[in-house]
Amino acid sequence: MTGLVLHDYFRSSTSIRLRAALNLKGLSYDQIAHHLRKCEHRDVAYLAINPQGLVPALVLQDGAILTQSLAIIEYLDEVYPSPSLLPKSTLDRARVRALAHAVALDIHPVNNLRVLAYLRSAFDANDESISAWFRHWVAETFKPLEAMLARDSRTGRFCHGDTPGLADLCLYAQVLNNSRFGVVMSPYPIISRIFDACAIQPAFAAAAPDQQPDAE
Amino acid sequence: MTGLVLHDYFRSSTSIRLRAALNLKGLSYDQIAHHLRKCEHRDVAYLAINPQGLVPALVLQDGAILTQSLAIIEYLDEVYPSPSLLPKSTLDRARVRALAHAVALDIHPVNNLRVLAYLRSAFDANDESISAWFRHWVAETFKPLEAMLARDSRTGRFCHGDTPGLADLCLYAQVLNNSRFGVVMSPYPIISRIFDACAIQPAFAAAAPDQQPDAE
Repeated sequence: MTGLVLHDYFRSSTSIRLRAALNLKGLSYDQIAHHLRKCEHRDVAYLAINPQGLVPALVLQDGAILTQSLAIIEYLDEVYPSPSLLPKSTLDRARVRALAHAVALDIHPVNNLRVLAYLRSAFDANDESISAWFRHWVAETFKPLEAMLARDSRTGRFCHGDTPGLADLCLYAQVLNNSRFGVVMSPYPIISRIFDACAIQPAFAAAAPDQQPDAE
Repeated sequence: MTGLVLHDYFRSSTSIRLRAALNLKGLSYDQIAHHLRKCEHRDVAYLAINPQGLVPALVLQDGAILTQSLAIIEYLDEVYPSPSLLPKSTLDRARVRALAHAVALDIHPVNNLRVLAYLRSAFDANDESISAWFRHWVAETFKPLEAMLARDSRTGRFCHGDTPGLADLCLYAQVLNNSRFGVVMSPYPIISRIFDACAIQPAFAAAAPDQQPDAE
């Protein structure tokens, strides 16, 4: 009994990466889903938990509230160090964080649901231009990410060595969501095989959108 | 002599936050500026250093290359622990990272120069709609950020207590860049006074755009 309560949404990329982290740590949690398209994350009750009105948020047994998926994952890694999501050496930790942040900062925020909705309302964007936008920002990062993984001997079965970590959590969630916008993955053989390696891990598979209670 | 080489751009928000971190740590560094509007960050020579073609990047004395500003700052905090940019307790660290990430993930990536340029080319955005976009994403995060700072007794002279840390680095750089897009700061008294507290610190002041060799 960990008493953890996860506020999430089945399809949210940041929720997927946090669920996979919780699963890798072997932590059980109750889920409260907030349907983003129905704006349930803007309910007053949820804003009292997370004023940003974003998922995920993690509420600890004592009521402490954690927000921001990467900050929560770093917290989990500090409190529950095994299995570790970051390597031991400071240089290697910097590498894993940089790979994770390439996805989590340079792709996801720009392709977030609320940004796509604003493109529709402010710039009359249609489904086609929205998908082109999404694919553009994936390509802008996946091309160099593929090169960064290819040129570094520390890349293993996963982004860093042969055990999954912080970068793999971000990569897995991003590739899952790419499929909804028609991203062609053939230019990214290393990213693709790392995704495949993640997808067969029970911790990652259980974090996928179609495994959640609120899946549609 | 630390032998550190910082690849940066005077006005880049991610460069500002990293320069302030290096200054807080008392680390000296040589600077190589890449003019983003002249696309110097897309030169082949720089892409060999950082395939993402983004600033900042930090090259260590032994040639090791670090990318992604937050990953570099976490590295600096691990290798040069004093003064610390993160508090000691795991819960407090999670809070500071969450405040930092609210700015660094939810505002900056969406308002990045390359995103604004894409809005112009793909959606015929003009100066007015670009500025409205910028201000919209600042407000979306600054409103709840102000509330999160107001409701938490751990907020001090800075975002967390009375010494500057990771969240202040991100806040300072964001507020500096806000001024270029006409963001009105009066709805955010706590953010404003934390910015002022940062601005009078020599480490932050020396990181500002107008203090850089490539300032225009």
